[in-house]
Amino acid sequence: MRIDIISIFPEIFEPTLGSSMLGIARDNGAVTFAVHDLRDWAEGKHRTTDDYPFGGGHGMVMKPEPFFAAVEAVTALDEAPATIVLMCPQGRRLDQRLVEDLAGTERLIILCGRYEGVDERVRSLVDIEVSVGDYVLTGGELPAMILVDAVTRLQPGVLASETATQEESFSWGLLEYPQYTRPSSFKGMDVPGVLLSGDHARVDRWRRAEAIRRTVERRPDLLESAQLSDEERLLAENLLGEHDPEGERP
Amino acid sequence: MRIDIISIFPEIFEPTLGSSMLGIARDNGAVTFAVHDLRDWAEGKHRTTDDYPFGGGHGMVMKPEPFFAAVEAVTALDEAPATIVLMCPQGRRLDQRLVEDLAGTERLIILCGRYEGVDERVRSLVDIEVSVGDYVLTGGELPAMILVDAVTRLQPGVLASETATQEESFSWGLLEYPQYTRPSSFKGMDVPGVLLSGDHARVDRWRRAEAIRRTVERRPDLLESAQLSDEERLLAENLLGEHDPEGERP
Repeated sequence: MRIDIISIFPEIFEPTLGSSMLGIARDNGAVTFAVHDLRDWAEGKHRTTDDYPFGGGHGMVMKPEPFFAAVEAVTALDEAPATIVLMCPQGRRLDQRLVEDLAGTERLIILCGRYEGVDERVRSLVDIEVSVGDYVLTGGELPAMILVDAVTRLQPGVLASETATQEESFSWGLLEYPQYTRPSSFKGMDVPGVLLSGDHARVDRWRRAEAIRRTVERRPDLLESAQLSDEERLLAENLLGEHDPEGERP
Repeated sequence: MRIDIISIFPEIFEPTLGSSMLGIARDNGAVTFAVHDLRDWAEGKHRTTDDYPFGGGHGMVMKPEPFFAAVEAVTALDEAPATIVLMCPQGRRLDQRLVEDLAGTERLIILCGRYEGVDERVRSLVDIEVSVGDYVLTGGELPAMILVDAVTRLQPGVLASETATQEESFSWGLLEYPQYTRPSSFKGMDVPGVLLSGDHARVDRWRRAEAIRRTVERRPDLLESAQLSDEERLLAENLLGEHDPEGERP
């Protein structure tokens, strides 16, 4: 997979793209990253990328011309068909299903706008607008890194185990079960006995039940689309009945 | 405000904390940032921060001791009472209201876990667990930067205009209206005439109506809690009636 990022702050990406899982994915060739400075396609001595909004108002608006020129030039860098993504708060809200869809494409070109505003005509360039959540940020750079991280870890050969990705939060449609490591007793808090039992079937049942319990307590909105057996569905319904969302957390 | 971040990848924060709005906020003293390496509180020659999960399974789990020692030491660096935040996918989903609440505190200490798992006992240390969205990431570092960006821009003196923050997406509970800058005609796409009219009252009405229209088309779930006048509420209801979510976008 190839991911191109177009931003006025290209320098902030490198440490993230070079560390941890992303660094490994780049080193082993699973993903090619290229970060481009939008100012390379801006005109004039000052290579200005923003201007005052028509109709007045606070803040600046990012000009259309640099984005059009940048997308044309960057698209031509590789033959693989690209999906053009604009990170913006008006976009489709990112969830794991959308991550999977985008991870299955050959190439992404991600446009980072300043959140104060991008000229409306830039939207005509893009295939999909994506928002990472309902909060206001300064720019699309951090959202772009979020998207890059989420899609890269799904590329073949990036994570040690394919199974690992399927056990994590949202892959079942449930929140993750509690995890424990050594020491078995710490500050008076003990690891649940079942995890020390060596009985794998019992451990699995406990983990599924705890994942369901946590989801009922914290994110009951996820239950409807979760993948549950009949027995688990019954457990979820019983727990939902007991759970008092107005009360304090146990 | 003071924000401490505890992570095993402290080096990836600096370019983001030093650029753009965050760099300005740091330079003018609106926010003090300090990034700490969790390994400084890990024991042993290798300063290991993770270990195998009890009960088996893929992936490693972050050990409890380094987090407890780090939080104790970092808390003592400043007298201001701190809210301890764990970035994790099981947390409360971040939205602008939660951003405002956290921005109003004197001090945040943000713990970045690897998303594969943090020992359950670490949760007993934290005041609030926060998730930036329903997708799987490698670690809490990018979510921490998202939270830092969102709360910092609300600090007094950080943005040029207080009004600007109130006009953005989600502050009214609506998506932002379309923005345009020069040129007034670009690739056959013209700026709407109303924005060139100089009639500020008309511009304002158009923008509110467009913000409502966009929200109806893209995020009707936001309408219920949006701040609308009676007239605007009626407009939203009419547009909702016309809008066919199964049909194509106009």
